[in-house]
Amino acid sequence: MMRLCAALKNYVSSGFYPGYMPGHKGNDKYSFFGDILKYDITEIDDMDNLHDAKGIILESQKYAAALYGADETYFLVNGSTVGILSSILACTESEDKILIGRNCHRSVYNAVVLNKLDCYYVYPGYIEEFGINSIINPGDVENILKSNIGIKVVVITSPTYEGISSDIASIAKISHKYGAILIVDAAHGAHFGFNDAFPDSAVKSGADIIIHSVHKTLPSLTQTALLHVAGTRVNKEKIRELLKVYQTSSPSYLFMASIDNCMSILKEHGKELFDGFLNNISEFESRAKKMRYLIYMSRLLCSEKYKITGNDICKIVINTKNAGISGKELNEELRSLYKIQPEMAADNYCLFIMTIMDTKEGFERLITALEDIDEKLFVKCKGRIFEREDLNLYLYNSRPIKRISSFEALKETGNRINLKDAMGRICADYISIYPPGIPVLVPGEEISVQIIEALNRAIEEKLNVQGVTDNREIRVYG
Amino acid sequence: MMRLCAALKNYVSSGFYPGYMPGHKGNDKYSFFGDILKYDITEIDDMDNLHDAKGIILESQKYAAALYGADETYFLVNGSTVGILSSILACTESEDKILIGRNCHRSVYNAVVLNKLDCYYVYPGYIEEFGINSIINPGDVENILKSNIGIKVVVITSPTYEGISSDIASIAKISHKYGAILIVDAAHGAHFGFNDAFPDSAVKSGADIIIHSVHKTLPSLTQTALLHVAGTRVNKEKIRELLKVYQTSSPSYLFMASIDNCMSILKEHGKELFDGFLNNISEFESRAKKMRYLIYMSRLLCSEKYKITGNDICKIVINTKNAGISGKELNEELRSLYKIQPEMAADNYCLFIMTIMDTKEGFERLITALEDIDEKLFVKCKGRIFEREDLNLYLYNSRPIKRISSFEALKETGNRINLKDAMGRICADYISIYPPGIPVLVPGEEISVQIIEALNRAIEEKLNVQGVTDNREIRVYG
Repeated sequence: MMRLCAALKNYVSSGFYPGYMPGHKGNDKYSFFGDILKYDITEIDDMDNLHDAKGIILESQKYAAALYGADETYFLVNGSTVGILSSILACTESEDKILIGRNCHRSVYNAVVLNKLDCYYVYPGYIEEFGINSIINPGDVENILKSNIGIKVVVITSPTYEGISSDIASIAKISHKYGAILIVDAAHGAHFGFNDAFPDSAVKSGADIIIHSVHKTLPSLTQTALLHVAGTRVNKEKIRELLKVYQTSSPSYLFMASIDNCMSILKEHGKELFDGFLNNISEFESRAKKMRYLIYMSRLLCSEKYKITGNDICKIVINTKNAGISGKELNEELRSLYKIQPEMAADNYCLFIMTIMDTKEGFERLITALEDIDEKLFVKCKGRIFEREDLNLYLYNSRPIKRISSFEALKETGNRINLKDAMGRICADYISIYPPGIPVLVPGEEISVQIIEALNRAIEEKLNVQGVTDNREIRVYG
Repeated sequence: MMRLCAALKNYVSSGFYPGYMPGHKGNDKYSFFGDILKYDITEIDDMDNLHDAKGIILESQKYAAALYGADETYFLVNGSTVGILSSILACTESEDKILIGRNCHRSVYNAVVLNKLDCYYVYPGYIEEFGINSIINPGDVENILKSNIGIKVVVITSPTYEGISSDIASIAKISHKYGAILIVDAAHGAHFGFNDAFPDSAVKSGADIIIHSVHKTLPSLTQTALLHVAGTRVNKEKIRELLKVYQTSSPSYLFMASIDNCMSILKEHGKELFDGFLNNISEFESRAKKMRYLIYMSRLLCSEKYKITGNDICKIVINTKNAGISGKELNEELRSLYKIQPEMAADNYCLFIMTIMDTKEGFERLITALEDIDEKLFVKCKGRIFEREDLNLYLYNSRPIKRISSFEALKETGNRINLKDAMGRICADYISIYPPGIPVLVPGEEISVQIIEALNRAIEEKLNVQGVTDNREIRVYG
């Protein structure tokens, strides 16, 4: 049977008149969009239905499943977010025990609240030298599972935003040994498994559910994602039911076509595109590692020293700790003088996502700008010693104590009080520094003096502290 | 401040290089999409964040709110579905009482289960002559609210899929009199309020929350919608929180731009486009009402006789009851011989959605095809009497008895048994005939002999009966 993209092209070229929605009718008068409107159709005859896929959409999903080696793959039009919500809710009953990486995405925390789960955390390691989170240690997972019998689900983020990948194969074995299902938020790892230069794909590492954002590192429209099920531990029917609940009943054919298109690109042009990427990145790296003040971290991290299972070379992390400028300042310099927009600027690094669709010219432009800035930093840095205190480490070390469940803490509206008066109170909101938005405090946790100090400092550094108002108020329980 | 479309155009034309996701990098090599990829960006500097809107997205939302006359308007990238879920969950506590139109969208039923709500139904009227649901009678709403003290929320669908609009102003007054919040699923009514030829907009009729699909009847991409809040009865913060939970953290800028673009089209070209539509539809109608076998219902319904508050002339309903063919057969004829694809084919009618973006040529093509088919029907219909039994009426009259809550009925997986053995059992699934998908049975309701008969007949007529398997099995409780 035909897949989605081919069927859409076929249909549009056959000249049918649309007596159906969407209301734009493929008419691009006054439109921001062009010819592509014609492909934005609805569930008409022969065009299948995402929520009850039997035709071209099912065929496209099967194609994707085969490509990744999953048992079943579902197209998501509401991002990885809906994949995470639906899989956690499908694998737990109300008040079940769950173990999650503390560096999980907000949607994992949301699922915990929705099902009133009893939540345990495993903290990732921390690489002090660069101020970033490291892998989730399988031994830590085992210790928690061993001492808290009955944990139903383990949720791990791998790779992280910065590209650091944990040992999923070991974590899967451990999870299964203790009767838990392993869900891997691999939103940033949809390109793994297609070339040996990248860490292993979580789909083939024994995890039960793997969620991929297709748009993050592969050529697909923003908001598109995949949910893969591997093995037989998971109730697929329940997942399908929940995807129906949490996704629109009018899913975008453009999104679905975009995923299908991306799968074709991987299958038909993957080798050529990954080879091109590897050429570009090795050229980039040979120049990047010669910089004197800006530190190109990505390859460095792969050395034995940091004990990382795998690192994603699509993520280019440029550390500024030796350069006398902050990540934010590097970001501004790149934007204002070179018209290069990074993906993210943290306290002491900038992150770029470079993919198989970046051109040689794109890589050239980025490395030339970085070299140029590095050259200019010479004057600024000469003879100065930079000892930026690591805010992230400070936060990392101030692990909060859980006083009540996040569900309980969010039940009432709570009261807003000033941060300076909040010591010892129970937090009734998510407090995080964005990006990357990992919660410093989760609802139900105690607000310590250390955390108050760290938040004050982050605010002074003009970082985006979510959950604290402009006049430094925080929501507390009771 | 600039709005989204302008800011995006500005940004893209300024020549920035994307060091960020999405991974397609605006590079359309091998792509299904063209130049539009460039506008598919992420939450980079100055581009605001849908989930914490403070800049161009907030400005765009305010523009939309002003256009519709709402107090606040939120852009939705997960369809009206997420608007309905979030508003019902924001306005109810667990186990609260809710009153919903029986002809509500599946997402309303899903919200009832998610919050374990105690659910009461108000049935719409029924127009036997044409076999379709009519308005929700305000008097019926009042009777139910009066005899079931403490109902927190009323949810009404208006207009319906077929374009029939209820008296929202009266229903709002009644709801508020009994202390209930009124949520109107106006997914099909986003074009109301811009021209007197259409029923009043629910936003200005006293409803508290109004949800509009922008893509259904206006020029915007599929899956885009608006949630309007009017007045002060609703906790807006709670709605925003829930939209953050149920929508992707990577919302599509194409979707948001599409909504913004649509708002500009309404404001700047609305008059011209609606005038054009009215010319086209009046030309269409003058010919359509002369047909002898196919009945053009849309204007007919506006007559006093049917007691309808308002009817949407964008919805062209062609009834086949006098034509000796089914709606499905008309659909097939239009597709195979005229390459016209209707929106929907029911037992005895076909539905077309015609909008301000349909061209004069499009209307001409549709009416010419219908006239042609009507002409041919003469031979077929001559001297024959058609008495198609009305399946919809049969279903409408067999109102099921609720035995347990839908939450309870869905808690266990249930058992599948043959339909013929299901009499008296409690249904553990949604059973509906699609389209339009209004549930014949809701989980927790008793399966009567009448319903079994009706479902068997629907299956024999090859209608799409959801919730009954190919071998006529149905999921029951216990």
